[in-house]
Amino acid sequence: MTRSLYADLAGSGEHLSSLSDETFLNNLLVVEAALAVAAAPEKADQAKETIASYQLDVEDLSRRGAAGANPLIPLVKDLKALNPAGIHPGATSQDIIDTAIMLCLRDGVQESVDKLKGLARDLAELTRTHQATPIMARTLGQIATPTTFGAITGGWLVAAVKATRGLEALEFPVSYGGASGNMAAAYPHGFEIQSRLATELGLDDPQWVWHSDRTPITAIASALATASGVVRKIAGDVVYYSQNEVGELREKTPGGSSAMPHKANPSAAIACDGYARRAPGLAATLFDALDCRLQRGTGSWHSEWQTLRELAAVTHSAVSRAAASIDGITVNVEAMAQRMTGIDTGHASDLAERALAIYEATAESH
Amino acid sequence: MTRSLYADLAGSGEHLSSLSDETFLNNLLVVEAALAVAAAPEKADQAKETIASYQLDVEDLSRRGAAGANPLIPLVKDLKALNPAGIHPGATSQDIIDTAIMLCLRDGVQESVDKLKGLARDLAELTRTHQATPIMARTLGQIATPTTFGAITGGWLVAAVKATRGLEALEFPVSYGGASGNMAAAYPHGFEIQSRLATELGLDDPQWVWHSDRTPITAIASALATASGVVRKIAGDVVYYSQNEVGELREKTPGGSSAMPHKANPSAAIACDGYARRAPGLAATLFDALDCRLQRGTGSWHSEWQTLRELAAVTHSAVSRAAASIDGITVNVEAMAQRMTGIDTGHASDLAERALAIYEATAESH
Amino acid sequence: MTRSLYADLAGSGEHLSSLSDETFLNNLLVVEAALAVAAAPEKADQAKETIASYQLDVEDLSRRGAAGANPLIPLVKDLKALNPAGIHPGATSQDIIDTAIMLCLRDGVQESVDKLKGLARDLAELTRTHQATPIMARTLGQIATPTTFGAITGGWLVAAVKATRGLEALEFPVSYGGASGNMAAAYPHGFEIQSRLATELGLDDPQWVWHSDRTPITAIASALATASGVVRKIAGDVVYYSQNEVGELREKTPGGSSAMPHKANPSAAIACDGYARRAPGLAATLFDALDCRLQRGTGSWHSEWQTLRELAAVTHSAVSRAAASIDGITVNVEAMAQRMTGIDTGHASDLAERALAIYEATAESH
Amino acid sequence: MTRSLYADLAGSGEHLSSLSDETFLNNLLVVEAALAVAAAPEKADQAKETIASYQLDVEDLSRRGAAGANPLIPLVKDLKALNPAGIHPGATSQDIIDTAIMLCLRDGVQESVDKLKGLARDLAELTRTHQATPIMARTLGQIATPTTFGAITGGWLVAAVKATRGLEALEFPVSYGGASGNMAAAYPHGFEIQSRLATELGLDDPQWVWHSDRTPITAIASALATASGVVRKIAGDVVYYSQNEVGELREKTPGGSSAMPHKANPSAAIACDGYARRAPGLAATLFDALDCRLQRGTGSWHSEWQTLRELAAVTHSAVSRAAASIDGITVNVEAMAQRMTGIDTGHASDLAERALAIYEATAESH
Repeated sequence: MTRSLYADLAGSGEHLSSLSDETFLNNLLVVEAALAVAAAPEKADQAKETIASYQLDVEDLSRRGAAGANPLIPLVKDLKALNPAGIHPGATSQDIIDTAIMLCLRDGVQESVDKLKGLARDLAELTRTHQATPIMARTLGQIATPTTFGAITGGWLVAAVKATRGLEALEFPVSYGGASGNMAAAYPHGFEIQSRLATELGLDDPQWVWHSDRTPITAIASALATASGVVRKIAGDVVYYSQNEVGELREKTPGGSSAMPHKANPSAAIACDGYARRAPGLAATLFDALDCRLQRGTGSWHSEWQTLRELAAVTHSAVSRAAASIDGITVNVEAMAQRMTGIDTGHASDLAERALAIYEATAESH
Repeated sequence: MTRSLYADLAGSGEHLSSLSDETFLNNLLVVEAALAVAAAPEKADQAKETIASYQLDVEDLSRRGAAGANPLIPLVKDLKALNPAGIHPGATSQDIIDTAIMLCLRDGVQESVDKLKGLARDLAELTRTHQATPIMARTLGQIATPTTFGAITGGWLVAAVKATRGLEALEFPVSYGGASGNMAAAYPHGFEIQSRLATELGLDDPQWVWHSDRTPITAIASALATASGVVRKIAGDVVYYSQNEVGELREKTPGGSSAMPHKANPSAAIACDGYARRAPGLAATLFDALDCRLQRGTGSWHSEWQTLRELAAVTHSAVSRAAASIDGITVNVEAMAQRMTGIDTGHASDLAERALAIYEATAESH
Repeated sequence: MTRSLYADLAGSGEHLSSLSDETFLNNLLVVEAALAVAAAPEKADQAKETIASYQLDVEDLSRRGAAGANPLIPLVKDLKALNPAGIHPGATSQDIIDTAIMLCLRDGVQESVDKLKGLARDLAELTRTHQATPIMARTLGQIATPTTFGAITGGWLVAAVKATRGLEALEFPVSYGGASGNMAAAYPHGFEIQSRLATELGLDDPQWVWHSDRTPITAIASALATASGVVRKIAGDVVYYSQNEVGELREKTPGGSSAMPHKANPSAAIACDGYARRAPGLAATLFDALDCRLQRGTGSWHSEWQTLRELAAVTHSAVSRAAASIDGITVNVEAMAQRMTGIDTGHASDLAERALAIYEATAESH
Repeated sequence: MTRSLYADLAGSGEHLSSLSDETFLNNLLVVEAALAVAAAPEKADQAKETIASYQLDVEDLSRRGAAGANPLIPLVKDLKALNPAGIHPGATSQDIIDTAIMLCLRDGVQESVDKLKGLARDLAELTRTHQATPIMARTLGQIATPTTFGAITGGWLVAAVKATRGLEALEFPVSYGGASGNMAAAYPHGFEIQSRLATELGLDDPQWVWHSDRTPITAIASALATASGVVRKIAGDVVYYSQNEVGELREKTPGGSSAMPHKANPSAAIACDGYARRAPGLAATLFDALDCRLQRGTGSWHSEWQTLRELAAVTHSAVSRAAASIDGITVNVEAMAQRMTGIDTGHASDLAERALAIYEATAESH
C-alpha cells in the first residue's frame, strides 16, 4: 500500500501513503478487524482470519459502491459471504468509514508533525545564528527600517511551533454509533465496545456519537489549514528573498528550467506555495459539511472522505517543501548588510531570543 | 454607535454594533487613547483629551485613507495636528488597526457566547423533557430506526457546548510591534508598553509581535465558522421537522408570506441557514491571508478588516436566529409517535443523559 | 442614498451607492412601482403615489423582517395599509427582492465597466509607448530573458478587455414567478406582465422563472470574480515593480506611513489586492447557493442578498484602485535598461501590437 | 491508462480516465510529439519515435520533479538524452503542461457534456409526460400552492441545458509562449507554430500567450461549478421527494444499508450531492490563481494542475450520479394528487412547454 493520494507533481519528494485511497480502503478492513475484537471477542479470531484473507479490489468496490453510495456496503457483503459470524457487529457504514479516515489522518498528521519539527529545528538554528544579523525589514513591499534576520526567522519559528502544537493537540476519535446513532444493536454495551475499539486501534474514545456532529472533522481541517498557511508565508518570503534583485537568500538546490539554463528558481518554496494555497478552499468545503442532516448527511458526509485526506496531503506536501527550502539555505549576510540604512534594530534580538525560548520549551528541543 | 455592520435583512432582530464600521473606527480612537496611557503617561491626559474631542467622520477618513491604503494614517495626522505630543507613540498603523479589530471581536464574540448559552439552556430543557420521547431517526433522508428526541437535541446541545467553549477559549491580543515589528521606537520598553496596553484595554498580551503571523486571526475565524456550522445543522434539522409532511416541530412564531396566507415557514431556522452558509467562504479568505508577506502584507492584511468582522456578524446572526427558532418551539410528540416502527431505542436515553452531564459541567448551568 | 455598502476602509476613494443596503431597499420600492404599472395600469397612479410617499426605515424593516425572514413582507404590509389597491399584484417577495438586486447589480456593474475602460485606456497608452521598451521578464520570481514592457502591459490590457466584455455580456433579468413560480395569480398574463416589468425597469426579460435556478446569479458572480482576479494580478505586479530593489515602476502618489516618513508604498495596488482577494470566497458562497431547494430555497437564497452585492463592491473597489495605480504611473526605463542581459525580445513587440488591436476592436477606442 | 483521478468512492460507476494523473503525464508526451511536428517537421519523425518509446514512470517523474517543481523538466531531460534533436523546440515547461491539461479537460468536459445530454433527454421525457401532473409546490420547506411536476422538471431541464451550453462554449487553448512568454526561441515563427500545434492536437489557437493570464482556466472552472450546482439542486430535490414522508419520487435502484435492510436510500442523488458540493471550494482556488505573478506564477500556476482536473472529475461524477438518479425514476402521481389543495396551476403547463421548446432548440433533440 504505497501509492500517494495523487501523483506528487510538484515534487514534494515524498509519497504520503497514509492518506491514499488504497490505505483508506485497507483501513476499512483494519477497523472491521478491530471491531470484531472489541465487540465479539469469541468470534474475533474467525472474523480476523476472514478479513485478513480478503482481496481488496479498489475499482471493484468503487463500482459496486454506487448502489449505496459507499464502498463499505459491498465490502461488508463480501466479508459476510466469506464468514457471516462476527463481521460488522452492531455497526453502520459510517462507523467504519469515519474510523478508517481517522486512522489515515492520525498517521498522516503524525508525519506532518515530524516534518514540521525538522523545519523548526532548522529555523531555530537560523534564529540562533542570525540573532543579530542586520537586515532591512520590508513592509507593504517596501524597505522599511532595520531589524535582524534572526527576528524574522524567529517569527517563522514561533508560527511553526504554534502550528505544530495545533496538530499535536488534535483528537482522532473512533465512531461506533450504529444504524441510527444510538448503538441499539450493541445495547447495552455500546459505549464499552466503542471504548475497546479505540484501544484496539490506538485512536481516541469520544464517549459520544458524532455521526452528524462533524466538529471532530473541522478541528482537524482547521489545524491543517493553519499549518499550510504558516509554511506558505515562510515560502513566499523565501521566494522574495531569493529574487535576483534582492539576493539575500538562496535555496541549497535551486531548480532549473527546461528553457533557461541560468535559472536558479527557489523551487521548493514555490512548490510549497502551490500546495498550500489549495488548503483554504478544501477547509471551506469541510466547514460547509458541518451542515449534516438529521442522523446522517445526504451528501455532506460523503464530501468529507476525499476532501479531508486531500487537505492533509497538500499540507504535508507544503510542509515538506518548506522544510526542503529552509534546509541548508544560504544566507547572504553581505547583501543584507549592504542595504542597511541604520543600526537601530530595537527589540529584534529580544524577539529572536523569545522565539528560541518558546521553541526550547517544546519537545523539539529534546 | 448603533448601526449594524450591514442592514440585517433576514431579521436577526438584533443590531450587533460591536462589529460595525463606526465602532471599528471609534475603536481606533479607544486604542490610541489607551496607548497614550500605556506608553507616555506623562502626556496621557492631554492626548486623551485630544482624542476625546476628535470628531470621527467615516466617509472623510475613508476618502483620505486612499493615499496610504488605511484610515489610521489620516486619523493620526488629524490627532497630531490637534496635539502633537503623546499621540501614537512608537506605534504603526497596523498596531492600532489590529488592536481595534480585536476589541470589536472580543465584544462581538462575547455577545455570541451569551446567545449560544441561551440556546444551550433551551436545548438542555428539550433534552430533559424528551429524553425518552420516541421519534424515528432519519439517515440519508430516509426513516431509519427508533430513537428518542432527547438523544437528538442532546446531540445539538453537545455541539453547541463545544462551539461555545471554542469561542470562550479565544485570545484577543493587542498589537504593538511598531514600524518594522521590532518596537524600535519604543525600545527598550516595547514589551512593557504592549503589556500595559493590554491591561488598559482588557485584551490579551501576546508577549510577541504578530504583524505577519496571522494565526490569532485564523483561530478566531475557525471558532466562528465552527459555531456557524453547528447552529446551521440545528436549523436545517428544524426546517426538516417543520415540513408539513413531517410536522414534528413547529417554530413558536412561524413566518408568513407576502403571497400565501396559509404559510407557516420556519423563518428563524431559514434565516439562520442564510447567515451561516456564508461562513465557510469568509473563513477561507482569512486562512488565505496567513500568506502575509515579510513584515507587513501587501493586501492580505487589508482583506482581514471587513472579512473577520463579517464572519463574526453572520455567526452572531446565525446563532441568534437558531436561538429564536428553538425558543418555545412546539414538539409534536403525537406526530412522532405515529411514525414509530418499533420501541428499541438503544442508548438514546443514555446519550441524552450524557449530553446533559456535559452541559451541566460547563458554566451555563450556573 | 449615498452610503456605501460598507465604509471603504482601504480607500477606493469612491462610494458605490448602487450596491448599498439603502439603495437595495429603495429598489424594492422602485420595483413595486414598476410592477404596479406593468400589472395593473388602471390602478398604477394611485399605487405609485402610495409608494412614492413611503418613508423607508432600514432598521425598522430589518427588525420586522425577522418574522418572515425577509424585509419585503413588512414593506408590502405597510404599502397595503396605505393603499390596498394595486400593490404587489401577483408577485411574491422573491420577485421583488431578486429584481431589486438586479437593479443594484446592473448599475454597479456599469460603474465597474466604466472604470475598467478607463484602466484599459491607460494600459493601451502604456502599451503603445513602451511597445519596444526593454525589460527583463521574470518567471517563478527570477529574472528570465528579455522582453518589452509593452508586451507585459499588453498582457494586462487583453485580460482587462476580456474581463470587461464578460461584464458587458451579463444579463440582469427581472423575476415575476409568483407564489410558487408559475405566476398563477397573474394567469393568463404572467409572461406579459414580466415582460412589461422588464421594459419599465430597463432590465432583461428572462421569459422564464428562475426562483430556484440561480444561474443568473452565478453568471454575474463569475464575471465579477474574473474581473477582480485580473486587476489583482496587475496590482501584484505593480507591487513587485515598485519594490525599492526593483524600482521599475512607481505609483503617481505613493502612500506614506504613520511611522516611516521615507516610505513610498504602492498603496493603490495594495488596496486593490486587499479588495480583490475577497472575491473567490464570496463567489464560492454563490456557487454553493445553486443548491436551491424545490421552489424556493431554505437559506441559500437569503445568503445571496449581501454576498452578491459585496462581491460587486469589492470588485469595483479593486478595479478602481487598479485604475488609480496605473493612472500616471512612472515607468523607469533606465532601471529596466540597466538589468538587460540581452536584446532578443522575440515576439514581444508583436504581442504589444496584438494587444492594441484587440483593444482597438472594442468600443473603448471610440 | 485507465485509472481514475481517484478511487470513485461514492460510486459514480465510472472511471474518468481522461483526467487522471497518468493521462495528464501521458499527455505531456502527446504534446511534445505534436510540438515536434508543429515546430520542426524535418526532425519530427525522429522526435516522435523517441517520444513513443519513452517509458513513463509516474513516481519517478514525481520524485525528480522536486528540483524544478514540475515533472516536465525531468521528462524533457530524459527525452533529450534519448534524442537531442527536435525535442521541446522553443517551448517552456508551462507550454507543455498547460496544453496537456487542456487535452485532459477537453476530453473530460466532452464526457460530461454527453452525460448531461442523456440527463436532459430523460428530463425532457419527464416534462412531456408530466406537463399537467398536479403536484404541490414547496417554498421555504413548506407546501405552497398547486403546480405541475412537468413545470418542475422543466425547470431542471432548462438549467441543465444552460449548463451544457456553458460547457460546450468553452475553449481549450494550446500554450506556446516560450521561456518568457514572447516566443523568442521560435521567432519569427512563434504564432505559426502555436497555430500548427493547435491543429495537431485538435485544441484552440489562442493567438495569444496566456502564461500569466489564467482566464482560460477560470472560464472552465466557472462552467464546471455551474454544471455541478445545477445537478446538485436536482439531486437535493430528488432526496426531498424520496423522503418516506413525501414519497413522490423513488430512484429505480435505491441503495441499501449495511445495517438496515428496509432502507431505500436515494443513493445516486446523495452521491451527486457529495461530489457537487466540493465544486465551489475548488473553483475558489482557481479564481484565486488569477493572481499569477509577472511572467510565471510562484505557486499559483502549480496549484491549478490538480485542482482543475479535480473540479472536472467531481463535476463529471455529480452529473453521472444525477443522470443515474433520474434514469427510470418512479413518479408517484397518486401521492402527489393526494396532497393537492386546489387545481389552479397557473402557467405551470406553459412553463413545461417552454422548457421543451428550449430543449428542442438545442442539438440534444437530434
